[in-house]
Amino acid sequence: MIIQLETSITSEQKQHVIDKVKEAGYKANPVITQMGEYLVGIGKAKFDIRSIGHLPGIRDIHIVSDDYKLVSSKWKVEPTTIDLGDGVKIGGGHFALMAGPCSIEGEENIINTIDHLKNNGIRIMRGGVYKPRSSPYSFRGLGIDGLKLWYQLAHEAGIKIITEVMQVSQIEEMVDYVDIFQVGARNTQNFNLLDELGKVDKPVMIKRGISGTIDELLYSAEYVFSAGNERILLCERGIRTYERASRNTFDINAIPILKEKSHLPVIADPSHGVGIRDFVEPVALASTVAGADGVIFEIHTKPEEAFSDGQQTLNYWESARLIQKLNHLASSKELFGH
Amino acid sequence: MIIQLETSITSEQKQHVIDKVKEAGYKANPVITQMGEYLVGIGKAKFDIRSIGHLPGIRDIHIVSDDYKLVSSKWKVEPTTIDLGDGVKIGGGHFALMAGPCSIEGEENIINTIDHLKNNGIRIMRGGVYKPRSSPYSFRGLGIDGLKLWYQLAHEAGIKIITEVMQVSQIEEMVDYVDIFQVGARNTQNFNLLDELGKVDKPVMIKRGISGTIDELLYSAEYVFSAGNERILLCERGIRTYERASRNTFDINAIPILKEKSHLPVIADPSHGVGIRDFVEPVALASTVAGADGVIFEIHTKPEEAFSDGQQTLNYWESARLIQKLNHLASSKELFGH
Amino acid sequence: MIIQLETSITSEQKQHVIDKVKEAGYKANPVITQMGEYLVGIGKAKFDIRSIGHLPGIRDIHIVSDDYKLVSSKWKVEPTTIDLGDGVKIGGGHFALMAGPCSIEGEENIINTIDHLKNNGIRIMRGGVYKPRSSPYSFRGLGIDGLKLWYQLAHEAGIKIITEVMQVSQIEEMVDYVDIFQVGARNTQNFNLLDELGKVDKPVMIKRGISGTIDELLYSAEYVFSAGNERILLCERGIRTYERASRNTFDINAIPILKEKSHLPVIADPSHGVGIRDFVEPVALASTVAGADGVIFEIHTKPEEAFSDGQQTLNYWESARLIQKLNHLASSKELFGH
Amino acid sequence: MIIQLETSITSEQKQHVIDKVKEAGYKANPVITQMGEYLVGIGKAKFDIRSIGHLPGIRDIHIVSDDYKLVSSKWKVEPTTIDLGDGVKIGGGHFALMAGPCSIEGEENIINTIDHLKNNGIRIMRGGVYKPRSSPYSFRGLGIDGLKLWYQLAHEAGIKIITEVMQVSQIEEMVDYVDIFQVGARNTQNFNLLDELGKVDKPVMIKRGISGTIDELLYSAEYVFSAGNERILLCERGIRTYERASRNTFDINAIPILKEKSHLPVIADPSHGVGIRDFVEPVALASTVAGADGVIFEIHTKPEEAFSDGQQTLNYWESARLIQKLNHLASSKELFGH
Repeated sequence: MIIQLETSITSEQKQHVIDKVKEAGYKANPVITQMGEYLVGIGKAKFDIRSIGHLPGIRDIHIVSDDYKLVSSKWKVEPTTIDLGDGVKIGGGHFALMAGPCSIEGEENIINTIDHLKNNGIRIMRGGVYKPRSSPYSFRGLGIDGLKLWYQLAHEAGIKIITEVMQVSQIEEMVDYVDIFQVGARNTQNFNLLDELGKVDKPVMIKRGISGTIDELLYSAEYVFSAGNERILLCERGIRTYERASRNTFDINAIPILKEKSHLPVIADPSHGVGIRDFVEPVALASTVAGADGVIFEIHTKPEEAFSDGQQTLNYWESARLIQKLNHLASSKELFGH
Repeated sequence: MIIQLETSITSEQKQHVIDKVKEAGYKANPVITQMGEYLVGIGKAKFDIRSIGHLPGIRDIHIVSDDYKLVSSKWKVEPTTIDLGDGVKIGGGHFALMAGPCSIEGEENIINTIDHLKNNGIRIMRGGVYKPRSSPYSFRGLGIDGLKLWYQLAHEAGIKIITEVMQVSQIEEMVDYVDIFQVGARNTQNFNLLDELGKVDKPVMIKRGISGTIDELLYSAEYVFSAGNERILLCERGIRTYERASRNTFDINAIPILKEKSHLPVIADPSHGVGIRDFVEPVALASTVAGADGVIFEIHTKPEEAFSDGQQTLNYWESARLIQKLNHLASSKELFGH
Repeated sequence: MIIQLETSITSEQKQHVIDKVKEAGYKANPVITQMGEYLVGIGKAKFDIRSIGHLPGIRDIHIVSDDYKLVSSKWKVEPTTIDLGDGVKIGGGHFALMAGPCSIEGEENIINTIDHLKNNGIRIMRGGVYKPRSSPYSFRGLGIDGLKLWYQLAHEAGIKIITEVMQVSQIEEMVDYVDIFQVGARNTQNFNLLDELGKVDKPVMIKRGISGTIDELLYSAEYVFSAGNERILLCERGIRTYERASRNTFDINAIPILKEKSHLPVIADPSHGVGIRDFVEPVALASTVAGADGVIFEIHTKPEEAFSDGQQTLNYWESARLIQKLNHLASSKELFGH
Repeated sequence: MIIQLETSITSEQKQHVIDKVKEAGYKANPVITQMGEYLVGIGKAKFDIRSIGHLPGIRDIHIVSDDYKLVSSKWKVEPTTIDLGDGVKIGGGHFALMAGPCSIEGEENIINTIDHLKNNGIRIMRGGVYKPRSSPYSFRGLGIDGLKLWYQLAHEAGIKIITEVMQVSQIEEMVDYVDIFQVGARNTQNFNLLDELGKVDKPVMIKRGISGTIDELLYSAEYVFSAGNERILLCERGIRTYERASRNTFDINAIPILKEKSHLPVIADPSHGVGIRDFVEPVALASTVAGADGVIFEIHTKPEEAFSDGQQTLNYWESARLIQKLNHLASSKELFGH
């Protein structure tokens, strides 16, 4: 049960609603986000919403049978749009592309990428400055100084940036230099990190776990939302299966399923989803037709020299071709629109 | 190593080639199909193809480093077209749709379906008369009499039929009443069945195993080809993973990967691939954009009353809409063509 | 619902029971095995067994809520013993070891193995004469002549044999030369093969499918039982997962789960279950402690020269050590008995 | 390459060794743990260890071909023993049992459990005070106050405690009140957490990821070791597969494989590994025979009333029986010892 409260609700009125919810055998979780105020009632008892619907300070009440609540489309039917400012929007009909290197490698690499994005009309740049690596001896990224340089150069060029945050202590130092926080596939169920990202007013893109279920991804989004941040994107990036012909198995089913279950935008990551350069394009195109609100992919001037993930990274010529096809396709919704 | 032989080769010449191949430390497997004659050399020794290239009776020689040979695109670069006659073709630029009920249920069901297909320009009807069922107590299909009736009605209407063969002993009784034999996901590695299907001159569509790898699917096709039948289609129908939000996980990656590894046409089965009616359409569209040569899907006048698989079956209204979208999309190759 | 019938039941009495079952809204499947006669009622209506319990010709009635019936322990509580004659028994407290090469390679190989088995007190020899191989160009086994030679030598030595049958047409030629038919992991859901094996009076060991579920294995056993053959063994041989450090993931959980769900004996195959020689022993021992009724494993005088599966095959010294440990452990049930 | 340094090495000598390693084309990672000092050389060039073996300050040099180094048994052949003090040891021949509730629920629950452990000779108690939960609305544990109470009561009773740490900021507040830090399956690749746990001198037990590979688990241990903490335990707790008859698939293969690849102790968690009360015992026994150095399992006076995981929790009677069997079995190494 989700109770949306009026911004004008008094604390006495709020307490009264909480009392009524508890009386009905429900746990009442107050949620205050940058966009509104809610009570999330958790319980299994039968509940007639009319019994409290008339109380002052309540805007709306919804029964949500899913175990996740605030991210469910059963409550909020219209798709959510994430507005990054300067005309850059994702979701709700706004198709967004994000591209960049796996790891931010230095100034030249940043400038190269920005030029390529500008030449191709892309407004969001991806890149890692904190890199989760299986081996402790591998390159772990340029860190906060790399981020600051990147942010400065990107913003001068009118480009927004998305980058991975790996732990709670990084949030504060990063928050002024990111446009979207990314939660990586190894941190999808790092609940403390999700909780803390719920307390900042920057959008958060959560990648599906390495072998995470669709429901677990939605629960992780519920953590962020219920901690106060409604600006969430979901990302399908392939799952771990027995198949060895590709790096991961891109779960194309997940795109329409997530779009139906949730009001949040869904982004496809074909680079990790298939993990082989030649197949990034067909998987990106397929994701678009399946209903994705955007695509994130890895590019590099010389993929074979990239610090990481070279085998799944497009060169600029391939990137330009993909961008053109994706934009054509996304603007031909009459062919496949659902 | 694949050695294509001239049709005019004499038996002495052939023996001479075989001897040379064996001398080089290779096992020579003679293959005679409805389209040509080959020697498949299996071995690991270094081999200079020039040493036999001049021998009389040899048309062409190819080194194929894959473990499967005759189905590899390393040997045959141009895509294979399966011609069913009467202008019905699959692959090589011919996009084909196949639709019908999970199980053939009787005359009315057949006539209904044929009418729907004709109204929507579909030339191939799917349906099961021998049904593999987990439980021995479930409906196992109408059998050979159902097939004969179906074949007669379909052919009067100019419709080709594809249906599953479950065991060797069924081939002979079925062969005159099918246009394409289907090998089901539980039989992908039923090697005896594959061997025998290599001896008939009807196309064979092999479904990927329930948790089969892409390579295993290609090996299974190699069985059919090496036993004498070049007319093979490959079918991606979803794989078994841990995810429970869909019946199977449709492996969209497999479509471009199979297209690159093999010259054989690739068909997508979104009905089994996602297993939920509402998501059949986006997965079908995605498969098309990813490069599939066709789509096979389940339809029924009243899905909720279908003998089997109702939850993933489209009604005729949904089917008509999907067919229209698929045809539009397939004919807009400039948007996504690879 | 399982209705056990008296052997003395008349056909009128039987028809009367069938009518009563149908009246209650159930489908009545008559089953005649080498051990008895049953009616398996399939339906969902409420049914009071007392309403027919008094009818003449009925020995016993059981409600079985599982979807599989005759193989369920909800009907038959005592574990089933498979008696191969000459004092060789499996299940019901009889712990059985089966060993031999992956492929039967010829007379010397057979004699070697038999000597080793006799020296170590093993009464059942495994080996393949029909080999399912991914590639059509691989060695496919010695076939029926190899089987006849093997059977003769084994029986002279008092050794029983278990070997894989791959297709229906092989059953008749093999039946006189096998003591246990094995159904391989690629044929677990080859329902025609299972049906036909239900019609012979030789025990059948069914391997779990390559990515088969526990329930699917039980359903496959139900095929054999319901077609007339009660003498069935279940075999856990590892499942396909994402893990690449072992060939398969041996599902140790499956052993106690199968033992609880079914009355049939459960055999462990650690050779395929882990696929690496050094780890066959610990997995075999673990299976025994988890409740397996027997262990089947691969041995060869020189594993590195075996025709197939050498990397998971024990040499005779390793085999002798394993046999000794398994027998010690199996006879120390007071340490772990459930 | 691992270079063990003498404790007496001077900084000049150390620098000289580092220079030599770098000259050879290797990256030199200095590692200082509570037990010793190392240089881990990462590189692919050929390297003759004799070229530096004579340098002053070097105790020993090992080439380790695995990508993980310090946790590899290729370097350290003897198994590692974790000594918790007061005679409580794990590994190196010391078989250890750890039991307790899923969540620490309060004083009565703690006292109950301690009594049961003392009565059954168990020296290590498990329990969660910070609980990772899929849903943000679920009980998340008693937190630091619960831990302090628990630690006090346990230590008065001579019981050591193991509990999960979920994030870096908890380490400092927890460190004085834990005997073993546990890293949960959702945090196996939380590299920042692993890094920080490398800086404390308390043992760390790392659970295998929900679908983590064996190699990933070893890499995660390498993080802890290379950051300074050698006292590490590895825990197999089942992996996520398609099988639904059990909560997870316990990977029995992983136990001997981890024991062979690494010198670290391996603990089995059958409670999560199978997830069903009745099967915890056989899986625990099987793990012991497969070579585990200990078993951790969940117990509760009334499992059906436990705050979490009740369905896989043993009651005290079942626990006592399991402890007795495990101790008997572990002390009968002659039956299965590898």
